[in-house]
Parts: sequence; C-alpha cells; structure tokens
Amino acid sequence: MTKSYLFEVKMSCGGCSGAITRVLNKQKEAEKVKDFTVSLPKQLVLVESDTLSLDDVNDIIAKTQKTIVNKKEVIQGWKLPEAEGEKVEWDAVPTPVVM
Amino acid sequence: MTKSYLFEVKMSCGGCSGAITRVLNKQKEAEKVKDFTVSLPKQLVLVESDTLSLDDVNDIIAKTQKTIVNKKEVIQGWKLPEAEGEKVEWDAVPTPVVM
Repeated sequence: MTKSYLFEVKMSCGGCSGAITRVLNKQKEAEKVKDFTVSLPKQLVLVESDTLSLDDVNDIIAKTQKTIVNKKEVIQGWKLPEAEGEKVEWDAVPTPVVM
Repeated sequence: MTKSYLFEVKMSCGGCSGAITRVLNKQKEAEKVKDFTVSLPKQLVLVESDTLSLDDVNDIIAKTQKTIVNKKEVIQGWKLPEAEGEKVEWDAVPTPVVM
C-alpha cells in the first residue's frame, strides 16, 4: 500500500533543494520511492512509497544534513498546491485515520 | 600521519556549506577528522585526517549530495587563505612528493 509522507525541511537555495532531489531520485531509481515533490518556497518535501516507513524516509533526507523541522504521514493522494505562493498550513494537511 | 585533502565543491548558499560543515563535524566528533575548513566563497573544503583516505572523505562529503568538482591530496600544513576575496588556483596548490 502506498503511503505519503510530508516533511518540513530547511532549504535556503536551489542547491539545498537540489541535494534533497538528488538523494530522493536515487531512491526512486532503486524503486523504493514511487514519487516525490520538493518545494523550496514552501520548505516542504512530499514522498510517496510502497515500502518505506516515515522513519526510513527521514533517514534518507537526513543524509543531506538538512534540518528536518517537522514530519508526518499524510493521507494518500494529497498533493502540494502547485501555486508557488500558496502556503500550506502544516496542521491542516489531513493525516490517515487510524483504525 | 596526518594527511590533507582539498575538495572543490559546488555550494550556492550558507545552507549548502552548512550541510558539509555538519557532516564533517560528525566525523570530527568521532575523531576521524582532525580539522577542516569549509569556504563558501572559494567553493573549497579542506580536510585533515590521520586515518581517512581521499576516497573516504569523498564518500563523506558526497552523502550531502553536493557536487564534487575536483579533489586531491595536498601537502600537510597547507591552509586556505583567510581573505574571502583571495582566489585559490587549483593547480597551484602543492601536492605531496611521491617517494
């Protein structure tokens, strides 16, 4: 089952977001990450995976030495708003219902 | 014997150089790196170590996903010029004499 994980990460330039993009692309090539989006203006990284846990993805992003401010699983299918200026309210992003 | 390694690394902001500083600080705490200097304006990283090889240090820096443009061992004791504007000519940095 695919899961979606949202990370708030401190990225101050395209070099910072590029580093995270590269580390996640490697996981995508290894078919561990299904898809991902990195948004420098929103300071957010959204990762979809069939196999990795939230902590697994945390460890992958942490390799870049970027500071992870916040992380949570979000409902599958949630996407980052495409408009650059559209802010995402962290607490408003829906999380999966625990059975 | 302490060895000194010089790396030319693409860093575009303080977040980029900070990531490299953090990964090298961890190695310093683990006493694998003796000392190091990261210069964002010069795009250079100088690392001194008693135990690590050039390739070891390469792998540590590469974890941050920053692009390593160039690398070489330089003579022990060589330091980065402190003046920000002072450019370093890569080929002019002396390398150890091979016996």
